[in-house]
Amino acid sequence: MPPPPYPDRVLVTEVGTRDGFQALDAFVPTATKIEFLNGFVRAGVKRLEASSFVSPRTVPQLADAAEVVAGVDRSTGARVACLVPNARGAERAAAAGVDEMVLLVSASESHNRTNVNRSIAESLDGFPAIVDIARANGVAVHGAIATAFGCPFEGEVDPERVAGIAARMGALGVASVSLGDTTGMATPPVTTRVVEAIRRGSPGTEITLHFHNTRGVGLANVMNGLALGVASYEAAVGGLGGCPFAPGATGNVCTEDLVYLLHELGIETGIDLEALIAIARRVEAVLDRPLPGQVMKAGPRLRLSPLDSVRRAVG
Amino acid sequence: MPPPPYPDRVLVTEVGTRDGFQALDAFVPTATKIEFLNGFVRAGVKRLEASSFVSPRTVPQLADAAEVVAGVDRSTGARVACLVPNARGAERAAAAGVDEMVLLVSASESHNRTNVNRSIAESLDGFPAIVDIARANGVAVHGAIATAFGCPFEGEVDPERVAGIAARMGALGVASVSLGDTTGMATPPVTTRVVEAIRRGSPGTEITLHFHNTRGVGLANVMNGLALGVASYEAAVGGLGGCPFAPGATGNVCTEDLVYLLHELGIETGIDLEALIAIARRVEAVLDRPLPGQVMKAGPRLRLSPLDSVRRAVG
Repeated sequence: MPPPPYPDRVLVTEVGTRDGFQALDAFVPTATKIEFLNGFVRAGVKRLEASSFVSPRTVPQLADAAEVVAGVDRSTGARVACLVPNARGAERAAAAGVDEMVLLVSASESHNRTNVNRSIAESLDGFPAIVDIARANGVAVHGAIATAFGCPFEGEVDPERVAGIAARMGALGVASVSLGDTTGMATPPVTTRVVEAIRRGSPGTEITLHFHNTRGVGLANVMNGLALGVASYEAAVGGLGGCPFAPGATGNVCTEDLVYLLHELGIETGIDLEALIAIARRVEAVLDRPLPGQVMKAGPRLRLSPLDSVRRAVG
Repeated sequence: MPPPPYPDRVLVTEVGTRDGFQALDAFVPTATKIEFLNGFVRAGVKRLEASSFVSPRTVPQLADAAEVVAGVDRSTGARVACLVPNARGAERAAAAGVDEMVLLVSASESHNRTNVNRSIAESLDGFPAIVDIARANGVAVHGAIATAFGCPFEGEVDPERVAGIAARMGALGVASVSLGDTTGMATPPVTTRVVEAIRRGSPGTEITLHFHNTRGVGLANVMNGLALGVASYEAAVGGLGGCPFAPGATGNVCTEDLVYLLHELGIETGIDLEALIAIARRVEAVLDRPLPGQVMKAGPRLRLSPLDSVRRAVG
């Protein structure tokens, strides 16, 4: 792990309404999704992965992507990104007015097949049509590589394979790529190897890290990412999300916990942590399920307790 | 944060039966405590903070300290440490056959008063009598400084105050000190300042870091501790423990998650992670409450899933 200086400023992307809500059994009402998203915007979040233009039959939880996108207040400059799996999804996303389309592919064959029912080559071959639609509509394109740090079926994923996909995206002019830790297999050394492979192969590509906390090391991975100079992270409010292969395991890195850590490291995010905690508590109350986020329970570190709140602990 | 090399080897101390169990409402039967402790020993744990020789009226959960100590299998070389608040506790601890007595004081006046009903000066003045008893019985002595990274009543704690307490301990020949993150206020920069202050004031003192995960950044703090070269950490099985000032917040850094991170970083602990996970699951089952540990739910990263275990996630 290289030493600081860390980045002065980090872009935090909120993915809860996409990566979190697609894992829920219930459909969250459209107005509620929009309320949450605008809560994030008011707290200062500048990029939202709001939804996904997949088939409503496959992911009914996100069937309202177009209405959700339309409801987000973008007067602060917040950008709305959505996953787009194919040309039809791209047309829908463009019509809905997304700011960014996200091209998704897994770095492992078995996961890509399981996730989108295509080979990696078929996914890559479908990207130019999506990019063309985005360009024609003046919409930015971002890449997302799932299972970038390991595959729950295949195990280790060769960093050069991830770098090769990033290079293919780069050849299409997509020079901004998220590395998805789909089932929480990222570790600091694995992350370092993948980031370095992409930097060697595609030096102009900007890397975003998307860690899951499935094995408890999400923010340890962020520490390593910062030391590598990576200045863009994706996270979910309250730590929403989950891993279908690890019942009970938590999902994404929690946005408030991430922002708390970044601020304590002296890194700017433009986000008001107290406002973010308030919206996280609202999400927990509306979903009516305990979320794994910690700062939303404990509060920032210097919110002091009254002396009479004490019970003796001795140790 | 300085760069690696990290320590090659780290000492992991299990504190669950002390720091975890004292926070429970229920009394865990003595035989169960001993079963757990011997499970940790069999998994390869080499130091256990097993209990506390405080007044049974104050902490009834740990009233069986002597029987617990007597039950631990030390044939592997595992060392049993216990908190000892005063001379009477030291006599009891010596008679019980502990390997280490732990001197405890808080770095903040209000917390020390709340925790042990004494001023810091009174606590420090009581240490020589304990050290004398330990020496007379051939027992090692370790120091523990609570609220070393912040106080829930007073806020920031001056690193020089922590260093001053470490120096007082050092003057008594106690050159091994744990820094307790009692209510989860440690951050990487705060930890660095405290570690550096102690190293300036007491260059011969060995530092152990005892983080709580109250604000989700426990393992991020460990990453920073490793980068500082600290090679000794305390943690609790399953993330047991809690913070009386943050309802719902988790407690200590989870031992299995810590060991997972260390092993993934290529750092030796001498601990068998699978065996540690098995005992964590047993603790969870016996206590009949969900524990926050993550690796105990998800398993090590290369434990692969069968393809037919999948539900499509799309993203």
